[in-house]
Amino acid sequence: MGEARVWHGGDLDEARRLFPRAPEPWIDLSTGINPIAYPVPALPASLFARLPSPADHLDLEAAAAQAYGATDAAMVVAAPGTQVLISLLPHLRGRGRVAVFGPTYAEHAHSWRKAGHDVVEVQSLDLLDRGDVAVVVNPNNPDGRLIGREALLRLAEDLRPRGGWLVVDEAFADFDAGESLVPVLPSNVIILRSFGKTYGLAGLRIGFALAPEPVVTSLRSALGPWAVSGPAIETGRTALRDREWLEAARGARAADASRLDALLSSVAGAPLRGTILYRLLESIRAPELFQVLGEHGIWVRRFQYSPHLLRFGLPRDEAEWQRLETVLGRYSQH
Amino acid sequence: MGEARVWHGGDLDEARRLFPRAPEPWIDLSTGINPIAYPVPALPASLFARLPSPADHLDLEAAAAQAYGATDAAMVVAAPGTQVLISLLPHLRGRGRVAVFGPTYAEHAHSWRKAGHDVVEVQSLDLLDRGDVAVVVNPNNPDGRLIGREALLRLAEDLRPRGGWLVVDEAFADFDAGESLVPVLPSNVIILRSFGKTYGLAGLRIGFALAPEPVVTSLRSALGPWAVSGPAIETGRTALRDREWLEAARGARAADASRLDALLSSVAGAPLRGTILYRLLESIRAPELFQVLGEHGIWVRRFQYSPHLLRFGLPRDEAEWQRLETVLGRYSQH
Repeated sequence: MGEARVWHGGDLDEARRLFPRAPEPWIDLSTGINPIAYPVPALPASLFARLPSPADHLDLEAAAAQAYGATDAAMVVAAPGTQVLISLLPHLRGRGRVAVFGPTYAEHAHSWRKAGHDVVEVQSLDLLDRGDVAVVVNPNNPDGRLIGREALLRLAEDLRPRGGWLVVDEAFADFDAGESLVPVLPSNVIILRSFGKTYGLAGLRIGFALAPEPVVTSLRSALGPWAVSGPAIETGRTALRDREWLEAARGARAADASRLDALLSSVAGAPLRGTILYRLLESIRAPELFQVLGEHGIWVRRFQYSPHLLRFGLPRDEAEWQRLETVLGRYSQH
Repeated sequence: MGEARVWHGGDLDEARRLFPRAPEPWIDLSTGINPIAYPVPALPASLFARLPSPADHLDLEAAAAQAYGATDAAMVVAAPGTQVLISLLPHLRGRGRVAVFGPTYAEHAHSWRKAGHDVVEVQSLDLLDRGDVAVVVNPNNPDGRLIGREALLRLAEDLRPRGGWLVVDEAFADFDAGESLVPVLPSNVIILRSFGKTYGLAGLRIGFALAPEPVVTSLRSALGPWAVSGPAIETGRTALRDREWLEAARGARAADASRLDALLSSVAGAPLRGTILYRLLESIRAPELFQVLGEHGIWVRRFQYSPHLLRFGLPRDEAEWQRLETVLGRYSQH
């Protein structure tokens, strides 16, 4: 099964292959992961040793329901990351036509296609209701495009008569949740929420689906009990209940995003877009800038579908900001 | 979907519900998990923060291939525990007839049934070749029954002409690997190996499938990248390469198993069976003994299909041994 390779952020092995003479340590700006992680709580040895208890797993789902504004914890399925949910969903219904609102996170189209569905990428909201399944990332990755709740509810309504699904990946909605569909979840909508990006703990592997009962049952059946690790459950339920941390992080990362925009404005050919956790630069000089940054040990995200786009995550500390500022300063003067 | 409830070991919440006045702390002998865990290595914050790198994930699979004696790491799929593999396998082929060599770990029949297959439990090896899929746990849980490699190879051969699979769950084979099918893996055999039981780290969630190429591809597709957490990858690859620890653990746990047999012999109605990590007691007094142990805060595993069976895991320290010895001593005298 010759799979098309999907580019992802976060793979510094790839960075080192492309730029073998770049200075270490690398500054990894290739992901949309919060660089200031939630402080992992004390993890007793028993969390590593014992199977996670069913009660603790349910408590993680209850914490997620509350954090995301769900009316009922029974509609929440915790998984070892959102990716496995993206991979499983296409196996939960018969093969059909799938429309993905693109360009967007490539794993959606990739997963539906691998499972045998007909997938088209459409660039207009109006074309999303033509298939059996519509997939929207909201806010979108990488450009931050946000679709309002009313438009999505109309789309779900259009899909419902023929048993269609609307999949809404709200991976980056935590810091800007105004339009989330979670509180109103219609019966043919499946929402995905990521834990690792907001909380800077992508290595722990925690993600959630919020879905109507039959989909919840199928996902639970495919994952089986104990799919989420003990350390992940403990960290996840603690962090999701810490609203104070989330508010503080929102403010701090928004300030970082503004600072990044200011740095990038001299090289950008258009206004910066994105979310608080990443900024998208559009410029005909993007391929050259990618090269220059790489040679200086700064790894950013490029895109197979457009050489003129680069996505920048947020630097983690003043040393990283300074290195980025220096390289960008020299580049924009040259 | 009214699911039959499957009983599992390890759920102390259930123990506390049944025996609300039992003394704390509970002694949990209800699982087959090594009570002396592999020492978790230092886990740098980056393992929690960053997505696991593809190279590290592959290295975990390479460590597993070497530890289990596989000829090629490409046939190994790492997952967040074996359970998710058990849950996924029934979705990888059309509905058919499945024969499970029982009685055994209940999740196998449960998963195939939930996915719509016709499942029968057979009690003779000769009846396993009648369906499309045969499932064997080897050594078996809970009774330790071991099927020789030659018999399994013949069974795989019988299933092959009609595209049948033989699934062999070698969850408890690490300490007694003489008959493992891994080194000779036929093209229609899928082997499952658990990490958490042997290494006493069930909460980390690591398990492996060793399978022919099409099944490997399907499992990778269903799980997606990054299904195993960063802390799990790091701990798993370190532990799987530590052959010295494994040898020492085998000796120590074998001694524990003998000590447990001696303690239980006074109440057992038949010779003890099982593996190094659990011992199965058969007695008409089993229900009464379960009650007495529970009232004293000792949680053992009973079985829905036979009230005369109790499975005992190994105590973790001298205090646990002494409490068990005292309760059993009083009980056998009364």
